[in-house]
Amino acid sequence: MDERAALSFLGDRLPHAGDDAAVVDGQVLTTDMLHETTDFPDGTTRYTAGWRSVGASLSDVAAMGAEATAAVAVYAAPEFDDSDLGEFVAGASDVCEAVGAEYVGGDLDESREFTAATTALGRTDAPVARSGASPGEVVCVTGTLGRTGAALRLFESGETERANDLFRFEPRVAAGRELAPYATAMMDSSDGLARSLHQLAEASDCGFSVERSALPVDESVREVADGEAEVRELAVFFGEDFELAFTVPERELSAIRSESPTPVSVVGEVTESGVEMDGEELPDRGYTHGGE
Amino acid sequence: MDERAALSFLGDRLPHAGDDAAVVDGQVLTTDMLHETTDFPDGTTRYTAGWRSVGASLSDVAAMGAEATAAVAVYAAPEFDDSDLGEFVAGASDVCEAVGAEYVGGDLDESREFTAATTALGRTDAPVARSGASPGEVVCVTGTLGRTGAALRLFESGETERANDLFRFEPRVAAGRELAPYATAMMDSSDGLARSLHQLAEASDCGFSVERSALPVDESVREVADGEAEVRELAVFFGEDFELAFTVPERELSAIRSESPTPVSVVGEVTESGVEMDGEELPDRGYTHGGE
Repeated sequence: MDERAALSFLGDRLPHAGDDAAVVDGQVLTTDMLHETTDFPDGTTRYTAGWRSVGASLSDVAAMGAEATAAVAVYAAPEFDDSDLGEFVAGASDVCEAVGAEYVGGDLDESREFTAATTALGRTDAPVARSGASPGEVVCVTGTLGRTGAALRLFESGETERANDLFRFEPRVAAGRELAPYATAMMDSSDGLARSLHQLAEASDCGFSVERSALPVDESVREVADGEAEVRELAVFFGEDFELAFTVPERELSAIRSESPTPVSVVGEVTESGVEMDGEELPDRGYTHGGE
Repeated sequence: MDERAALSFLGDRLPHAGDDAAVVDGQVLTTDMLHETTDFPDGTTRYTAGWRSVGASLSDVAAMGAEATAAVAVYAAPEFDDSDLGEFVAGASDVCEAVGAEYVGGDLDESREFTAATTALGRTDAPVARSGASPGEVVCVTGTLGRTGAALRLFESGETERANDLFRFEPRVAAGRELAPYATAMMDSSDGLARSLHQLAEASDCGFSVERSALPVDESVREVADGEAEVRELAVFFGEDFELAFTVPERELSAIRSESPTPVSVVGEVTESGVEMDGEELPDRGYTHGGE
């Protein structure tokens, strides 16, 4: 099985799987694992790694429309250097502080490769699932798209300070909380916008029609991309931007825009079926870990 | 830094670190990582691996005297085989069910080595820390000691079915809940009894005097051990048995014995300082991962 088939296999067995996080008695729980070879390019500081890995789990809490309360991590490495470990903990603590959560530690483990396994805890009485979108609603994203793709190019070209800055995203917890009362379906864009739209379409049994020109492409993408095709690749497919993709009735847009602390862009509308961009089918593909 | 120095380094930076689990607003959160090369000997089934890895986190919830509510895991492997994955999920689900918690899934990740990163969530309004033991109290353990050491010998000799049985411990959540109102300090024995006593002594600023003859050595230990020295090694130092080690005033013993669903053995008493067995200093060492 590939990873997608395996996730589907799990979804059939576990009633709570299939959303960005599980919800048990109002507690939101989600876990992720990131590896040096696939997730942290050469030049990624341990501070950025701590921020980003814990941030990925906090983003899943945000996608449920929940408050973030705490996070833990397992820091696994071939050896424990106090500077590296201190930087990781500082990054993990700072990203938690940025969203009002508390970093409460975790565990250490010897591992051949630097690996971070992170878990975030949140709380909500009204989680937003992926399954509530209806035709006629609009589909929106928070913030900008393509930042992570641009960061990877900057790591490759040695501009590591700028790349690290772009890599440290702010999990959209505050926005998710404000959007939750209005959003009919929501998830984070960790696998890219295209893949997120396909996942929302499948969960909600609907389609999407989005406009390329409406996408909030991050300004860093245009700096690094070689032509419009690459801009599209980084903004639409690359993913790992950890923005929120969500659907709402159009009449709620003004309320959302005034309440969300992060800018919201309408990128298209919910349709009966099919996922299209500018009238053409949008492939269900994203960034695949492992460099395929 | 070695792992102990690194944990101490973390403890200085994170106010919630240092107990078996962190507690935030009555929610108990703990995370662990287990690897094939260090934690799952040849012959360990994926069912046992799922049970044991999730069980290790549930044991930390038990050590806080908390109710266990949910668990998640990241299953990381070079490839995803549906039989392996199904077995892992079944083991993870079954150990949760055994303690009244719910296994709610998690994530998948490609990794060079089979690795399980597990997180358990619990709830308590009165967590039991490691720091409350006082001289004059007694020190007790639940269940029996040495089972995991015996299991490793059985894996080595090819008796894998019996070894798998011994490897699937029951996390002491129910016992921990009953002991919590009485216990002055508690932790799980995942690093072995000797190490646990030293950790309790350090956290409580006390000492211990235990009797070798009072230890509840698992019957499997005598079957596999070659002489009394090896029995002692497996029961006292080996660890990974995930029993609870705790202190209580002696007058509470009859209440504890009638309420704990797991047998409780008094193994010694709390002293002013020093950790001794049969009047001799008990070394602060345990099972070190990685085969040192």
